[in-house]
Amino acid sequence: MSTATQDRSEADGKLSDDQLDLVFGALAHRTRRALLARLGSAPAKITDLAAPFELSLPAVSKHVRVLETAGLVRRQIDGRVHRCSLDTAPLREAERWLAHYQAFWAETLQSLAEHVEQEPGP
Amino acid sequence: MSTATQDRSEADGKLSDDQLDLVFGALAHRTRRALLARLGSAPAKITDLAAPFELSLPAVSKHVRVLETAGLVRRQIDGRVHRCSLDTAPLREAERWLAHYQAFWAETLQSLAEHVEQEPGP
Repeated sequence: MSTATQDRSEADGKLSDDQLDLVFGALAHRTRRALLARLGSAPAKITDLAAPFELSLPAVSKHVRVLETAGLVRRQIDGRVHRCSLDTAPLREAERWLAHYQAFWAETLQSLAEHVEQEPGP
Repeated sequence: MSTATQDRSEADGKLSDDQLDLVFGALAHRTRRALLARLGSAPAKITDLAAPFELSLPAVSKHVRVLETAGLVRRQIDGRVHRCSLDTAPLREAERWLAHYQAFWAETLQSLAEHVEQEPGP
């Protein structure tokens, strides 16, 4: 286990490793990414969400549950109608993770390149 | 299947849905994220990568293979030594996906909020 990564996310008060696992896992399927894109336009009932997909209602419902567990979708139950809405907060944290490491990596690669340039030839 | 999402990534000439599935899937495990963070400092041999983790060499090797399949890690084989290095390009594309949709969602949420404000009270 990398304590460096763990400490970093805890120090920032951001998503835990468990939560980041779930968020990236939820994003790792094109149907779920498409569902998020759809929910970004407006909240929707499960039946409406299923309509554009060549998938059964239970299959879409299963994807929605994965999104719900990752905190990306909230479900409001009104009798038999389940209305879903998007929560973008965990996505911002996932993006923050990527942005943070990319800044760090860009810096490292730059200094590696400079180091190589300074080395005498063979 | 969402043709909207698919068309978008193809039109941008960016990662395909298949590749985004693999990249987000690779990120969906804290050990793999920690391996990426470690490789961001400098390329490393598999044995060196395994050292800080309480994991067997085959277990770390399996995680490295997932990262390799997602295009995040390149492996250079020199006899029995496998040297791994980071490729940040797919991460930039994953971040781009998140940034793109967040901009779109922020806009939508803003106009929804304005719409609600303009509606007459009950």
